[in-house]
Amino acid sequence: MNFMSDNVAGAAPEILAALTAASQGTAPSYGADEWTRRLTARLSALFEREVAVFPVATGTAANALALAALAPPWGSIYCHAEAHIHADECGAPEMYTGGAKLVPLDGIDGKLAPDTLSAALERAPKGFVHAVQPAALSLTQATEAGTVYSPAEVAALSAIASRHGLRVHMDGARFANAVASLGCSPADVTWRAGVDVLSFGATKNGALGAEAVVFFDRDLSADFGYRRKRAAHLFSKMRFLSAQLEAYVTDGLWLHLAGHANRMARRLADGLSALPGAEPVHPVEANELFIALPEPVIAGLEAAGFGFYRWNGSVLRLVTAWNTEQAHVDALVATAAKLSAG
Amino acid sequence: MNFMSDNVAGAAPEILAALTAASQGTAPSYGADEWTRRLTARLSALFEREVAVFPVATGTAANALALAALAPPWGSIYCHAEAHIHADECGAPEMYTGGAKLVPLDGIDGKLAPDTLSAALERAPKGFVHAVQPAALSLTQATEAGTVYSPAEVAALSAIASRHGLRVHMDGARFANAVASLGCSPADVTWRAGVDVLSFGATKNGALGAEAVVFFDRDLSADFGYRRKRAAHLFSKMRFLSAQLEAYVTDGLWLHLAGHANRMARRLADGLSALPGAEPVHPVEANELFIALPEPVIAGLEAAGFGFYRWNGSVLRLVTAWNTEQAHVDALVATAAKLSAG
Amino acid sequence: MNFMSDNVAGAAPEILAALTAASQGTAPSYGADEWTRRLTARLSALFEREVAVFPVATGTAANALALAALAPPWGSIYCHAEAHIHADECGAPEMYTGGAKLVPLDGIDGKLAPDTLSAALERAPKGFVHAVQPAALSLTQATEAGTVYSPAEVAALSAIASRHGLRVHMDGARFANAVASLGCSPADVTWRAGVDVLSFGATKNGALGAEAVVFFDRDLSADFGYRRKRAAHLFSKMRFLSAQLEAYVTDGLWLHLAGHANRMARRLADGLSALPGAEPVHPVEANELFIALPEPVIAGLEAAGFGFYRWNGSVLRLVTAWNTEQAHVDALVATAAKLSAG
Amino acid sequence: MNFMSDNVAGAAPEILAALTAASQGTAPSYGADEWTRRLTARLSALFEREVAVFPVATGTAANALALAALAPPWGSIYCHAEAHIHADECGAPEMYTGGAKLVPLDGIDGKLAPDTLSAALERAPKGFVHAVQPAALSLTQATEAGTVYSPAEVAALSAIASRHGLRVHMDGARFANAVASLGCSPADVTWRAGVDVLSFGATKNGALGAEAVVFFDRDLSADFGYRRKRAAHLFSKMRFLSAQLEAYVTDGLWLHLAGHANRMARRLADGLSALPGAEPVHPVEANELFIALPEPVIAGLEAAGFGFYRWNGSVLRLVTAWNTEQAHVDALVATAAKLSAG
Repeated sequence: MNFMSDNVAGAAPEILAALTAASQGTAPSYGADEWTRRLTARLSALFEREVAVFPVATGTAANALALAALAPPWGSIYCHAEAHIHADECGAPEMYTGGAKLVPLDGIDGKLAPDTLSAALERAPKGFVHAVQPAALSLTQATEAGTVYSPAEVAALSAIASRHGLRVHMDGARFANAVASLGCSPADVTWRAGVDVLSFGATKNGALGAEAVVFFDRDLSADFGYRRKRAAHLFSKMRFLSAQLEAYVTDGLWLHLAGHANRMARRLADGLSALPGAEPVHPVEANELFIALPEPVIAGLEAAGFGFYRWNGSVLRLVTAWNTEQAHVDALVATAAKLSAG
Repeated sequence: MNFMSDNVAGAAPEILAALTAASQGTAPSYGADEWTRRLTARLSALFEREVAVFPVATGTAANALALAALAPPWGSIYCHAEAHIHADECGAPEMYTGGAKLVPLDGIDGKLAPDTLSAALERAPKGFVHAVQPAALSLTQATEAGTVYSPAEVAALSAIASRHGLRVHMDGARFANAVASLGCSPADVTWRAGVDVLSFGATKNGALGAEAVVFFDRDLSADFGYRRKRAAHLFSKMRFLSAQLEAYVTDGLWLHLAGHANRMARRLADGLSALPGAEPVHPVEANELFIALPEPVIAGLEAAGFGFYRWNGSVLRLVTAWNTEQAHVDALVATAAKLSAG
Repeated sequence: MNFMSDNVAGAAPEILAALTAASQGTAPSYGADEWTRRLTARLSALFEREVAVFPVATGTAANALALAALAPPWGSIYCHAEAHIHADECGAPEMYTGGAKLVPLDGIDGKLAPDTLSAALERAPKGFVHAVQPAALSLTQATEAGTVYSPAEVAALSAIASRHGLRVHMDGARFANAVASLGCSPADVTWRAGVDVLSFGATKNGALGAEAVVFFDRDLSADFGYRRKRAAHLFSKMRFLSAQLEAYVTDGLWLHLAGHANRMARRLADGLSALPGAEPVHPVEANELFIALPEPVIAGLEAAGFGFYRWNGSVLRLVTAWNTEQAHVDALVATAAKLSAG
Repeated sequence: MNFMSDNVAGAAPEILAALTAASQGTAPSYGADEWTRRLTARLSALFEREVAVFPVATGTAANALALAALAPPWGSIYCHAEAHIHADECGAPEMYTGGAKLVPLDGIDGKLAPDTLSAALERAPKGFVHAVQPAALSLTQATEAGTVYSPAEVAALSAIASRHGLRVHMDGARFANAVASLGCSPADVTWRAGVDVLSFGATKNGALGAEAVVFFDRDLSADFGYRRKRAAHLFSKMRFLSAQLEAYVTDGLWLHLAGHANRMARRLADGLSALPGAEPVHPVEANELFIALPEPVIAGLEAAGFGFYRWNGSVLRLVTAWNTEQAHVDALVATAAKLSAG
């Protein structure tokens, strides 16, 4: 009963089946295959626009490569202080961009506020040769705090970025959870809201290891093939990445899986929030729950073998996945209730 | 009937089955799982030495990361002029090392000769601050020409490298084909012959996308975890890389698959070499055949739908894989014979 | 009457004379000359320890090269939020280190407080492969705010850094002003206080363009020659850098020049602080003065042709140099007084 | 009597005087000064075209920065195998470009032949994602062998480069010697012959340390200010670089100095070539002489205290400078003659 992360889950049966099917016969290598061709068509349909698609295997690769396409070595990239690209990628964006600087901004519930971004960009010494130059904004959707930007919120931030000449990247490692939560068109919360490039994640939501860098402005992707290759992220047997992603977006699987994860997080939140002393830290809008619980309850849950992170003292992070069992959720809540009553 | 490359083949059933099995249940992420633990034990047994093992998904990643562990930004890396790291990785070694220089050396049949290496290293301006400093030797096994270094040949080259203070890397994208060809212990042609780090390939020989960086000198790997992460090659669901590699080395699968590929190349070579005007270019010691054929034969094979590369004018490259069908080999030879007689 | 910066001043006559003298005759290039040899001896004497010395031409080069010797590409470098390396070098440290991350910390009067550093380092996820690893502390002496760390303050910060495994760099672009202010031995505020490498600045204090990277732990400098050369900072006619630096430290010239600049800043501070509405922002301990003045006074000074920066709204930065004329200081104060009385 | 290199010479009196003069008074920093403004005007006049000018202090900086403006990290740069950028800059071009690959080509007398370049570019796998992409040609003028490209030769090579989509850089560390030798307009052998960017050297020909990166296509320089700053080559007291360069091109000083050096090389060549057993290796067209002499003559010259490099066995390299004394040349020739007569 492991709520450590959504990446502790295995792969969805549909995706495994797609891999097995894709393995039949020979196929051109390095992306000249049918799966990759179809994937581009499918994502273009999904996003209601001709997009350029580059499958890679890790979210960090998707992010770092996308940012390198947007920011020169002397650029700066604005992001939330808790953004994965800043806090959890060991400098991959710096490596891939050739040394661009990340500018971390604070924001409640994991979200950047327009005023914060605006103030930071006003302060930035544009055209001043001694300082890195604002080049990109990176938004995380869903955020590291388990919250979700609305299309209007994304649009407001993108508009500020655009006014200052920045391009907009979206880290969508949990994009499915966000879209399932919003119930909007994927287009509404991306290019229609000003996003130029999306890291479209599948790994956390049922793939084995597959993400797609999706360019809404295809001109930005002119050199991307070289970037991906020299970063060692061009797969020879590309069909095995594309097949995962194709299955992922076929028949709404991605939203189906994410919807389940979201509901399990909701159920967990509802159950735990009712306990005495429980204090949710952020709104639960996707598949992550941050909640403060009394120490004896936490210790008891740990002793009972439930897996989760202590985020900060008495605050827990619990993450649900595409295959989290409702029984496990209920068991955790019941155990916590017993401990709480105890 | 595609002989373009061994990477046009799909994945071996045993490896697909291992993926499906690995997908059951939750597992710790980022390599703290059982599959990765077992893989290290298995490779240590296979190589008769405690090794440090880092799974990655592409051969270029394995090579570039390994080289970055051996060469500083002001280092130089000696390799064959046709080495994949020099000719086919779009500068990945340069990116990962922070700008080290590759020094390409000529050599017949894809192999470096001791005298050539020795002469190049004698010429190198060691300690001269204006020049990059020799840091590593990279050998490809099996070579780009489909030939194989014997343990004694590797040892001779490594000894020269070592005498000049260089570390030794082996690009083993087709290591299985080489070992199957040599019939020796994997240890004999690696660390016992002076190799420090091996890119142990599986992708071309039946995996979907999995390679292991194997450190024989584990001290060299102290920082490797950081290098891999910031290069975006640390998989969250690592078990899916390790499970591929574990299946690959279980019950000799890797040598079984490679042995088949080698035999098919041998059969192709025997069949084609007998034709009038045929001139094999290199000895066929692994799963690649380079052969000059009369132009009408080549054109006829192309017209008949056989897939292969024209390497250089009338020289073809034909590559066999773990699942190349003997019937396809025979069909190609028969067609060529008919064209030749025609 | 230009108080924009100390780099608007020309070069001291002693230093120009040294250049002219050094130009006589031929000399070995790239640092194998007598001036460079003597410089190392002089700096070893000055610092009461055998040091390794590498002249370069800009402060940014000294800093970025020194930091690259201390931090790996996956390292992090702790510094004040206003540090030149973070705010004013357009990412040079990122370029030279290969992508290390700077961690800006707040601190009053331009100085880091031990508690702030300690807390930041406690929070740092050491050994966590997803995060950059704390590698170096960089202190600016004198600070960007015109204040000076005492030897005890440097020692306290270095001790914290050392306890967490970090090396210590000092950006001494205005090191002379700091030492002239402290009246201590240069050793007391550097290696005796835990500093490993110093960017020993001369440009702002009377040189044309000359800085020395001074390694107190010479083992750290093993590869530095290669770093400097490939960063294009190895001068062929090195004698012209070394001659500047030699003259700079001969007969106490450096402290004589800095002492004058400091006194002029003091005089300026005393004069302006006495005005109604004047509010000094930081203690004036070196050659920079930050002071808030009533807007009409500022505007009047600007109209009268005095040069300075508006740092932030009504706060001015005024910088004095080795050759700032007392008459100019007095003129500025008198004008301000008249405007104030106005 | 040192013929080791032209960088063993000091600085020309006119340039030292310009430095001293430039030191008077205050001046805006970082290039907003009068000297820099005038320099751009002077070089625009000299080159008969509006050029963008960026002074730096070393030839390696000029070259590496210029190349970084022309080649992306996945680019390749074609040059002569003996080019300084390939053999003598310790990987600076690789560092500055972010890992571009240098492609060394052979060529007699230090010069690239059109056929060689053409063949290399025909072979280059353009648009092939696995290989670095041809981006720039770098020509050295005068060459490392002391020879000079004629305007027609430069134009022929540039035309080939241009046809393949490459930009053209000229390493003009000894540009003055080349132009003095050719007697042509500087424009004829640069932009009129297809050169996009020139490293305009002064250091070897009488400056202390000053080079200008000259962009003939000013659009290419849009980001150059950021590149120079973050490479730590933006001087705060820029006037001291610009003043050197201004004096250098005032009243034809640069050609006057280079002409002297060339004549001294010519005189040396004439004197030594007449000796029995002497074999000049390359035409002497600038200020370098490569000549094979009998071993007893070489040994005797060394014993007599003459300074030069043994380039390769019995081949000497002798370099003359702006201030080489004719008496020293004659003394060397006379000594050699006496040794030769035995």
